[in-house]
Amino acid sequence: MPRAYNFNAGPAGLPLPALERAQREMLDFEGTGMSILEHSHRGKAYEGVHDEAISLLRELLAIPDDYYVLFLQGGASQQFAQVPMNLLPAGKSADYLLTGGWSEKAYEEAGRVGTVRVAATTAKGKAYTRIPKQAEISLDPAAAYVHMTSNNTLFGTQWHWLPEAGSVPLVADMSSDFLWRKHDVSKYALIYAGAQKNIGPSGVTVVVARKDLVDGGRKDIPMIFRYSTHASQNSLYHTPPTFGIYLVRNVLAYTKEIGGLDEVERRNREKGALLYGAIDANPDFFRAPVDKDSRSYMNVVFRLPTEELEKRFVAEAAKLHMVGLAGHRSTGGVRASTYNAVSIEAVRALVDFMNDFARRA
Amino acid sequence: MPRAYNFNAGPAGLPLPALERAQREMLDFEGTGMSILEHSHRGKAYEGVHDEAISLLRELLAIPDDYYVLFLQGGASQQFAQVPMNLLPAGKSADYLLTGGWSEKAYEEAGRVGTVRVAATTAKGKAYTRIPKQAEISLDPAAAYVHMTSNNTLFGTQWHWLPEAGSVPLVADMSSDFLWRKHDVSKYALIYAGAQKNIGPSGVTVVVARKDLVDGGRKDIPMIFRYSTHASQNSLYHTPPTFGIYLVRNVLAYTKEIGGLDEVERRNREKGALLYGAIDANPDFFRAPVDKDSRSYMNVVFRLPTEELEKRFVAEAAKLHMVGLAGHRSTGGVRASTYNAVSIEAVRALVDFMNDFARRA
Repeated sequence: MPRAYNFNAGPAGLPLPALERAQREMLDFEGTGMSILEHSHRGKAYEGVHDEAISLLRELLAIPDDYYVLFLQGGASQQFAQVPMNLLPAGKSADYLLTGGWSEKAYEEAGRVGTVRVAATTAKGKAYTRIPKQAEISLDPAAAYVHMTSNNTLFGTQWHWLPEAGSVPLVADMSSDFLWRKHDVSKYALIYAGAQKNIGPSGVTVVVARKDLVDGGRKDIPMIFRYSTHASQNSLYHTPPTFGIYLVRNVLAYTKEIGGLDEVERRNREKGALLYGAIDANPDFFRAPVDKDSRSYMNVVFRLPTEELEKRFVAEAAKLHMVGLAGHRSTGGVRASTYNAVSIEAVRALVDFMNDFARRA
Repeated sequence: MPRAYNFNAGPAGLPLPALERAQREMLDFEGTGMSILEHSHRGKAYEGVHDEAISLLRELLAIPDDYYVLFLQGGASQQFAQVPMNLLPAGKSADYLLTGGWSEKAYEEAGRVGTVRVAATTAKGKAYTRIPKQAEISLDPAAAYVHMTSNNTLFGTQWHWLPEAGSVPLVADMSSDFLWRKHDVSKYALIYAGAQKNIGPSGVTVVVARKDLVDGGRKDIPMIFRYSTHASQNSLYHTPPTFGIYLVRNVLAYTKEIGGLDEVERRNREKGALLYGAIDANPDFFRAPVDKDSRSYMNVVFRLPTEELEKRFVAEAAKLHMVGLAGHRSTGGVRASTYNAVSIEAVRALVDFMNDFARRA
């Protein structure tokens, strides 16, 4: 079977060389006579991979020394609870910026842990078609932290600037756009991301967090949920998802090889320009519901004139090996997720198909 | 490199056919043009794997219909907290049977969630060399549950009978001996196990639990930590560790192929008989610190006359491709972990080496 053009929203495509490396090494990791899956997490072979994954991430993002890099489990959904468990003490409140379904979930889960407050929302009925403006955000200067979701996979919006939070720690769920370009980590107090978009497979969660915040986190919660527990043991407090972290290493090593995050950003911007260009060039046929300055470079959402045409579009695309184009089950429409591993070639193929489909319809 | 004889305590060896299958399918899962790693957890391809893993587990263990089978994340260490979060309401207390380092950790973590009580301990200084007798266990008939660790990897002990808990729900951490034979699931209220011994890779946690207990679990905790959340959505509430569960599927399919858990038990008993036989046949040289009726079939722990000989033993074994034989860093000594994927051939090779080493020393 030829390799599919994978526009899945996540778990998403991975760079082919990262998978080929895993395939090559599957039965015998570096001449040890064992798979990396079979190595102890306390042994040299695995520890080398673990440390390399962390140092590659530090290098690619230029993460400052006063930040921890943690590999955890449970995905962003567990972080929705773990962030307030660590950072929201009784008597304090946390601010949430609502820009879509995931930030709503983060807000609701945090409300089961402590006191939370909506500092901004761009909800219009059930939809979110834009990122708020600074003037629309009313922050509590005494908040324990302010939480944002940097990219919304359902509605296809993305923050292209950072809210001014003063001295309040900025916490970002970057699950769906972490590493889409070089982020200025120093602007954030804590970043978390499920790996299954740009970083690796599902089952690994990356947390990058200011050391003082982690060290001063709440101690009245179980050990396993304290960031400080994992930080003090280099994410080896308990058995980590070793193969997942190995794959993260493979993806990061490949990312470095192709030129790092500057090259990644160049490709992502080109992909976005191609797709939004095709949409804007056919305004009578394609409709992008998102405000232009809030458009996502990771999830390009658009509508066709009818739901029936949308279904046909997705079905015909599938015959050309383009998969994952149906919009989220809650929103409908078409969604092309163009994470880092989606090639420019794949996007060109999709654009050609879009133009052809519009002409024929 | 020839395939190593892997006596790791976990992550441990996996059946070669399960790994070979993963290698074959790594770039193209069932003609889809994508790796299983790249498939959406909401798509048919992955859902087929997910459901097959669950139904294979149900079949192999003959799990009754009134039990849920869940695939979670975070390992046993997260279950140490998650069990009391779900099952230990305020005003109640839970009983813990201490038989080693892991049950101590489970007890301590539960104490950070609610009220806990030691119902039995076989600690002798820092060591645990046996399982308690029923007469030594003082259960609280009003306890929310009683917690046991079915096998202790550090000290090499294993329960070969079940404590009589009356109507109190029995919760078992079976991380290190789940599936070593057919368990009578109906005797337990809840079983949990990190996958990285007998079931698959690290990063997947299996929970088998009575439906009434799960459905009636505490609701004053975050959604993500409620068993009921995952039960109601077939472990697809959030993105599961898809590749880990795929590998679990591969291991379970292989387990069924070789004859199911009866055959697995036969092999494990033969492996245990070979190793303990070699130890007992050389009582002047090898010493098994564990009481005979508490000996583990998963982790065979023994000492040599001196620590220096133990070091030489481990080093010489490594030259013969036998890895993972050093005892836990907290206990020292020698430990051969003989999980399901360790072949009788590997154990024979180890026994031959033991006999040879004893003769030469």
